[in-house]
Amino acid sequence: MKALVLQEKNVWPALQEVPVPTPSEGEALVRISAAALNHRDIWIVKGMYPGIRYPVILGSDGAGYWEGREVIINPGMNWGDDPRVQSKAFSILGLPANGTLAEYVLVPQQQVYDKPPHLNMQEAAALPLAGLTAYRVLFTRCGLQPGEKVLISGVGGGVALLACQMAIAAGAEVYVTSGSDEKIQRAIALGARAGANYRKADWPARLKEEAGGFDVIIDSAGGPGFPELLKLCRPAARIGVYGGTRGAIPGLSPQLLFWKQISILGSTMGSDEDFRQMLHFVNTHRLRPIVDKVFPLEEGPRAFERLDEGRQFGKVIVSVKPHPHKRF
Amino acid sequence: MKALVLQEKNVWPALQEVPVPTPSEGEALVRISAAALNHRDIWIVKGMYPGIRYPVILGSDGAGYWEGREVIINPGMNWGDDPRVQSKAFSILGLPANGTLAEYVLVPQQQVYDKPPHLNMQEAAALPLAGLTAYRVLFTRCGLQPGEKVLISGVGGGVALLACQMAIAAGAEVYVTSGSDEKIQRAIALGARAGANYRKADWPARLKEEAGGFDVIIDSAGGPGFPELLKLCRPAARIGVYGGTRGAIPGLSPQLLFWKQISILGSTMGSDEDFRQMLHFVNTHRLRPIVDKVFPLEEGPRAFERLDEGRQFGKVIVSVKPHPHKRF
Repeated sequence: MKALVLQEKNVWPALQEVPVPTPSEGEALVRISAAALNHRDIWIVKGMYPGIRYPVILGSDGAGYWEGREVIINPGMNWGDDPRVQSKAFSILGLPANGTLAEYVLVPQQQVYDKPPHLNMQEAAALPLAGLTAYRVLFTRCGLQPGEKVLISGVGGGVALLACQMAIAAGAEVYVTSGSDEKIQRAIALGARAGANYRKADWPARLKEEAGGFDVIIDSAGGPGFPELLKLCRPAARIGVYGGTRGAIPGLSPQLLFWKQISILGSTMGSDEDFRQMLHFVNTHRLRPIVDKVFPLEEGPRAFERLDEGRQFGKVIVSVKPHPHKRF
Repeated sequence: MKALVLQEKNVWPALQEVPVPTPSEGEALVRISAAALNHRDIWIVKGMYPGIRYPVILGSDGAGYWEGREVIINPGMNWGDDPRVQSKAFSILGLPANGTLAEYVLVPQQQVYDKPPHLNMQEAAALPLAGLTAYRVLFTRCGLQPGEKVLISGVGGGVALLACQMAIAAGAEVYVTSGSDEKIQRAIALGARAGANYRKADWPARLKEEAGGFDVIIDSAGGPGFPELLKLCRPAARIGVYGGTRGAIPGLSPQLLFWKQISILGSTMGSDEDFRQMLHFVNTHRLRPIVDKVFPLEEGPRAFERLDEGRQFGKVIVSVKPHPHKRF
């Protein structure tokens, strides 16, 4: 089969012919129709991830066919029994196990779910990792309620954009930040109320003016901007943290934390139950993940470059085998 | 009546004769038997508190008599309808309203609760503010479960010591920090497993060695030690923050937060429901607050000095009118 294989550090995975894996009992050999990239894939290529091995087929997100069903794959494996936190055995599809950037992927059968019927294969491939992460941080961890004011930071990212769409669908008043005015405008077109460009020094004042304050803030940046988020919190606010691309948080005020009874809630990926609830939410609200750009499998390196540039709005998709009935 | 009246900044409140207040409908004129000091009282004297007025009778904690009952007073007034956070009308007894460092205090009747029968008046006076704060941060916010490993920082303080006692009573494995080896030994005598002196550079390593890691951490320091607490967290840990005496928190790692699914939960005082639950817990477990030292009302300034020195273990009590039947 054809696959994008990572052979060494700092070289984008390139197309290669590899053997089709053979399923053991309890495993599903899913024929991939579309896959999606995540920043995780970029970090692995750049050697910025624990447990990297070579060669490996990257890719955590996939939609395709299995036993006559149209399916998507839950990329979070072996979460374990505790709904609060993943077990030590937890892993994410696409390292260490070979991932979805191939014509076939081998996964435990319990990772396979029916594709939401209202989504095409590319939209479905855009959903699993980002949708799971967004759902858990927004609902399971932060307990978002209809009518609450929500701030989503860095709305261009896959998780942030799905969190934005989910919060809008849940009946929240959604505000966003981005480093790009265009992305803010696109979020507003999706139903966000307003936004602020974090490259402008007055972004906290702008948000304060627009929204007053926030009940829920979803952030994956951390860094020097984070203490400003605390100031923008309404009483009893929850800040969901699912990333830290800007690094350590300086100068956090305990006084703001305790007086406003703020909760800062770390969150990563999600449990099997989170995944089921996420699919139910997506089906109920007929939510459609935004596809930024589609590349054929043969142009894998260009897909990686697209995500690495950071100019995307929505998910970068790799189309593997769009036609179900054509054999290779 | 006699009262300790704060007349100006930086001068300990001194004994003075003032009129006995007259209750309106719905108010209770409680005859104080014993009162307790809190750091809040010190900060008010030093001008480090919002909304200070002169003259004012300080004191948030009191136990005494009302309508033939032995009572204690809930010092948190007008919490409001939201269990998650106090309303804007919330205030604490002893500023702006005159407090308990007097022979009588006037409070809304709903602030008055039956004294736990197993406590004497001095122990009962030691309970309200610290017990309410400790109960909320430990149970309502951090959801402490039996068998969990708990770290209480700065165990000499009133809230920390009651949190330590409550966590022990709830069946947790309790560890402590303090700047004093003697206080650590006293906490161990109460049932704590072990402790570390935060004046020694290796305190995080000591705690790691003793406990492995913690499910719940209760902290009122913040400051440069706080990021070490994150490293000591077990997966799904909750850090309850009810103060920030060491100031802003530098260098907090978002990666530790999200990967371990840690929750940092600000908490202050507690709702009426928290107060009721706290009393129920104290009665059920026959918990006895630790009394550090008792001063007669006439020696009020010495009581303030005792707390200001920071060498106390348990609550500093002011004995107002120990004998219920003696009229003044």
